[in-house]
Amino acid sequence: MTRAILDAKKAKGLRWDQIAGEIGMAPVWTATACLGEASATEEIAQKITAVLDLGDDVADALQECPLKGQWMDKTIPSDPLLYRFYEILSVFGPGVKQCIHEEFGDGIMSAIDFTIDVEREQHPKGDRVKIVMNGKFLPYVRW
Amino acid sequence: MTRAILDAKKAKGLRWDQIAGEIGMAPVWTATACLGEASATEEIAQKITAVLDLGDDVADALQECPLKGQWMDKTIPSDPLLYRFYEILSVFGPGVKQCIHEEFGDGIMSAIDFTIDVEREQHPKGDRVKIVMNGKFLPYVRW
Amino acid sequence: MTRAILDAKKAKGLRWDQIAGEIGMAPVWTATACLGEASATEEIAQKITAVLDLGDDVADALQECPLKGQWMDKTIPSDPLLYRFYEILSVFGPGVKQCIHEEFGDGIMSAIDFTIDVEREQHPKGDRVKIVMNGKFLPYVRW
Amino acid sequence: MTRAILDAKKAKGLRWDQIAGEIGMAPVWTATACLGEASATEEIAQKITAVLDLGDDVADALQECPLKGQWMDKTIPSDPLLYRFYEILSVFGPGVKQCIHEEFGDGIMSAIDFTIDVEREQHPKGDRVKIVMNGKFLPYVRW
Amino acid sequence: MTRAILDAKKAKGLRWDQIAGEIGMAPVWTATACLGEASATEEIAQKITAVLDLGDDVADALQECPLKGQWMDKTIPSDPLLYRFYEILSVFGPGVKQCIHEEFGDGIMSAIDFTIDVEREQHPKGDRVKIVMNGKFLPYVRW
Amino acid sequence: MTRAILDAKKAKGLRWDQIAGEIGMAPVWTATACLGEASATEEIAQKITAVLDLGDDVADALQECPLKGQWMDKTIPSDPLLYRFYEILSVFGPGVKQCIHEEFGDGIMSAIDFTIDVEREQHPKGDRVKIVMNGKFLPYVRW
Amino acid sequence: MTRAILDAKKAKGLRWDQIAGEIGMAPVWTATACLGEASATEEIAQKITAVLDLGDDVADALQECPLKGQWMDKTIPSDPLLYRFYEILSVFGPGVKQCIHEEFGDGIMSAIDFTIDVEREQHPKGDRVKIVMNGKFLPYVRW
Amino acid sequence: MTRAILDAKKAKGLRWDQIAGEIGMAPVWTATACLGEASATEEIAQKITAVLDLGDDVADALQECPLKGQWMDKTIPSDPLLYRFYEILSVFGPGVKQCIHEEFGDGIMSAIDFTIDVEREQHPKGDRVKIVMNGKFLPYVRW
Amino acid sequence: MTRAILDAKKAKGLRWDQIAGEIGMAPVWTATACLGEASATEEIAQKITAVLDLGDDVADALQECPLKGQWMDKTIPSDPLLYRFYEILSVFGPGVKQCIHEEFGDGIMSAIDFTIDVEREQHPKGDRVKIVMNGKFLPYVRW
Amino acid sequence: MTRAILDAKKAKGLRWDQIAGEIGMAPVWTATACLGEASATEEIAQKITAVLDLGDDVADALQECPLKGQWMDKTIPSDPLLYRFYEILSVFGPGVKQCIHEEFGDGIMSAIDFTIDVEREQHPKGDRVKIVMNGKFLPYVRW
Repeated sequence: MTRAILDAKKAKGLRWDQIAGEIGMAPVWTATACLGEASATEEIAQKITAVLDLGDDVADALQECPLKGQWMDKTIPSDPLLYRFYEILSVFGPGVKQCIHEEFGDGIMSAIDFTIDVEREQHPKGDRVKIVMNGKFLPYVRW
Repeated sequence: MTRAILDAKKAKGLRWDQIAGEIGMAPVWTATACLGEASATEEIAQKITAVLDLGDDVADALQECPLKGQWMDKTIPSDPLLYRFYEILSVFGPGVKQCIHEEFGDGIMSAIDFTIDVEREQHPKGDRVKIVMNGKFLPYVRW
Repeated sequence: MTRAILDAKKAKGLRWDQIAGEIGMAPVWTATACLGEASATEEIAQKITAVLDLGDDVADALQECPLKGQWMDKTIPSDPLLYRFYEILSVFGPGVKQCIHEEFGDGIMSAIDFTIDVEREQHPKGDRVKIVMNGKFLPYVRW
Repeated sequence: MTRAILDAKKAKGLRWDQIAGEIGMAPVWTATACLGEASATEEIAQKITAVLDLGDDVADALQECPLKGQWMDKTIPSDPLLYRFYEILSVFGPGVKQCIHEEFGDGIMSAIDFTIDVEREQHPKGDRVKIVMNGKFLPYVRW
Repeated sequence: MTRAILDAKKAKGLRWDQIAGEIGMAPVWTATACLGEASATEEIAQKITAVLDLGDDVADALQECPLKGQWMDKTIPSDPLLYRFYEILSVFGPGVKQCIHEEFGDGIMSAIDFTIDVEREQHPKGDRVKIVMNGKFLPYVRW
Repeated sequence: MTRAILDAKKAKGLRWDQIAGEIGMAPVWTATACLGEASATEEIAQKITAVLDLGDDVADALQECPLKGQWMDKTIPSDPLLYRFYEILSVFGPGVKQCIHEEFGDGIMSAIDFTIDVEREQHPKGDRVKIVMNGKFLPYVRW
Repeated sequence: MTRAILDAKKAKGLRWDQIAGEIGMAPVWTATACLGEASATEEIAQKITAVLDLGDDVADALQECPLKGQWMDKTIPSDPLLYRFYEILSVFGPGVKQCIHEEFGDGIMSAIDFTIDVEREQHPKGDRVKIVMNGKFLPYVRW
Repeated sequence: MTRAILDAKKAKGLRWDQIAGEIGMAPVWTATACLGEASATEEIAQKITAVLDLGDDVADALQECPLKGQWMDKTIPSDPLLYRFYEILSVFGPGVKQCIHEEFGDGIMSAIDFTIDVEREQHPKGDRVKIVMNGKFLPYVRW
Repeated sequence: MTRAILDAKKAKGLRWDQIAGEIGMAPVWTATACLGEASATEEIAQKITAVLDLGDDVADALQECPLKGQWMDKTIPSDPLLYRFYEILSVFGPGVKQCIHEEFGDGIMSAIDFTIDVEREQHPKGDRVKIVMNGKFLPYVRW
Repeated sequence: MTRAILDAKKAKGLRWDQIAGEIGMAPVWTATACLGEASATEEIAQKITAVLDLGDDVADALQECPLKGQWMDKTIPSDPLLYRFYEILSVFGPGVKQCIHEEFGDGIMSAIDFTIDVEREQHPKGDRVKIVMNGKFLPYVRW
């Protein structure tokens, strides 16, 4: 499925944000679903395959619940861009944990009821990547 | 050092954002430095120890360049809050990589020329944690 | 903290379900909090230390947000009782995943908005351990 | 075998609980056997292939004793739904161990003489996944 | 506890099979319990401490349910004697699995309802170690 | 080679102990050799292929010295039957080591000059698997 | 892509420094790009394929942003030449870290805004390999 | 030893390049020896302790052959500065290997007959770290 | 390449020491090169292919600088014969290190300027394997 | 024990080969026993402690059967001298395996009925380390 989508995307010269605009979703989510790490509704799957002129088998595959995270063949990603997120966790994770607990109490930021977006921020010394994560705070149940 | 700071912070009943406000820095950075994952300038170190009534040895320690990331004794963090960041990398990493490359070309978001902030977002169905990462885009050199 | 609680518990000859009964919580949660894998509210912490005749430092410690899961020094637990849960995941996990997705769609069973209880089930051929997990279903957001 | 079963299941539009109802077994067990993590008796294997219009080679394969747990290519599963079971072990395992030992003495809950079922629990704030594990308690022999 | 037992054992010049003879148990089990990998009943614990002139704290400790397998700091044991058991699993495991399944069906040999004994077998070309494992066969439940 | 042998074995409806009886070897060894974890002499290889009506290429392959232990793709086996042997090492290994050293001195039980057999032991509460290992004791040389 | 380039390079009898000279880039970078660990601009990709008489699909592939570091299937490289770089990090890393921090303060040498070159240094007792790394110093932001 | 040296160095306000200048060695080597990753000759050890006013036990310790590389408690270093060297190996290693083999034939750059130096390179857009490695080429023997 | 060589070797009924005799090299080196872990000169490659009646593509492949050590898919080899070398390192390594340092000072035995030979030593109680390693001592440079 | 022996050895200015000469054993074995990786007979233990003027507790400790290989805290040793033995296994292991099997058949070189010696070999281009391993060949039993 991913192969077919990437080929069609290249043949048509489309970017992820263009496809996302056509189907009314965010670019990161759209790429994530097309890479097989998220599942689409039937309606969205139809839209994606319509934009890319692909068949029903791709639309079906887009709706399946994938076994996620299989791409990472090592526990620490070797790709420099992806590694930086691991490093951020490694260096800033404890500070972030302190601040979240102090503000919200014991619990977590959900990675399911969650969105993530990437933006370009213009800057005279070189543009910056801005990543906004937004997840529901889930407090631990005490029972 | 971290032990002394955490004890003084508790005794004084201060939160990270209060200490951060006193010294003019961001809460996540302040917590990160006090946990020994970042180094302070001499001026900031003096301010932190002034707020907490701590001595020069703490101020010295705050200025050292630490061996970072030592707290994580396993390659995958076991703490649920911290694990979610690993999961986000695992599920959304490839999509984020596609979008960054499409927008900026080959390179990375710096984790050094980088800030990270945590905010509370009010929401009727339960408040949300908003995390904003902001790092300079560094293009790969071709030489 | 855990050491003090276990010693007091032994000295008083109390079981976890007795302590749990006194404080109005479930036995597994009570044991989990006393082992430092969950945090208590101030009220519950006071009750626990009252039952065990322990001081305010223990009550304070019970309210902190712990770095969870640190007890497991290997990625696969060596203790036979604990390993069985890993084996259940290994053998029955894929079947459980299929059934949850078929019933609920793409998402997860929360391990935060979650309770777990242990019961004895009488059986002529040998009593059985019954474990009931109950977690909110969290559907993946599509944005 | 698994491929053939999943294709036939999809072509016929059957759910696991429907197949399970036809053959008189539980849905999780049925899915587990069809995914190659459990073996069927000859009678059950015939029923499964009858429901799905599949041949004797599938019925044969369903009766073999598989090398179990091979699907998990990392020691910690990357899929978020499956990971939650690892996290439950990591956070609640020690408390569960305490409660089982206090109630039953030294031994384990069998993962062989064992059943596991998944149910939907209606809830106004969002339905919940209820998982019931039921395993014979096996006391350690002292000899 | 283990330290105290080993010191007393050495001071009295006792072997494991002598202690085992005194308390009416098998040598391997006796050593296993004294090394903290198995728990004793109150009666056996009293006998062990009586033989070794040790106090009630040791008798108490002998009755606790230990977190088992903690001695092995690597996943593959480095000690040559212990490694050989890993090698036997590695080389002969698949053949043993075939023979057990063919004789008993799908299931396992229990490691809980289980005994293990070590014997010396006289042999002209050099004596041999004979190890007899005896575990209940547990068939997988199909439900 | 293994594929051809397993297919021929199934087609002829033979068990490992039947093949072993025909060629005058033990069942576990026979299965081990046919699974490619042990090498046969030319005579035995001929007998095996004669019983199964297989050609000279299989007989040749049976005589090669294999790279052993390759089947185990993780350091800890995920299959429940095979894992139990790892668990036995983990729980009873230290006790067995003590007893062997006390009886034989410093050295090991050979895993090369070694036999392993599986037997069924009738038992009113459920039959038992009896595994007998027999290896030459090899004392460490001091030079 | 890499296969096609290596075959063409061999057929034409070209060395990396010859190709690099033709396209006006450094040999290490040229080899890195052709091995799929760096991406080329369109112009450079055209030059490379022109030198090697290869088609547009290779030129396209050379411009993609690769998932880097995938060649290393173990976390520690087994190849002796490559391992030496790991050993240098292991033995001299802490000293290098001290000297960089003392000279530059807290931060890193960039591995993105970075060049690496290999030279032969003539020496009467045997020629030497000289490797020059040159990366921008990036100071940690304090915010 | 390292503790004593670092304390004396701090008390005297010396930098590594100053100590190195006093003893006539390179800064990286001096730091490496003082951190216990290299051994000094008696003469150099005397000079180092003279500069720092330390005793003979430190001079003795500086001359011992250390068990090297013990500081790195994970196989992949978590410190961002040190990790960059691992990343360089991961991304540029294969290209460097190609160029060394093409220039020198089969063999390695020695990490023993080896020097490494760190320099600051002034640059208008931000100074750069220049690292020069220089190791004897060792060709593989064919015998 | 390895496949072709092993097949030709088998078809001709040659042993490694016979091939080695024909080409004037040592048997272990010859086997190592043919298994793709060492590279041959053009002259030796021609001789090997002449002895085995193989073509120029094999002779070319024999001259390439291989990515060495790839055969070992786990960090600890599972094959019993190969594992013994790991065990020797594990048990006797520290003693060997002490003796080499005491005799030669700080440095290593080269594994590049290195030969290794295997011999049979007749012995009345069973023949012995004698392995002779011979590597240049390389002293650490102090600079 | 090891600490006491190393201190006494240093105070007396003895080398391993001198101690070995006094007690009539080989230097590598003597160092191995004193480092706690081998056990001595009572007679040898007495001799070692006599040479070093140490007490009975050291003599007792020298006779115990140690848990071997514990020094190696990573599966791959980080020390360059010790790593070279791992590298030799990695590069030359398969060739050695071929030659041993061809000469001796299926089996192993014992690491128990085994000696290892280190010698200096004078050489005009730099002295060489010669290591001679000598282990009994153990053929696999077929039963």
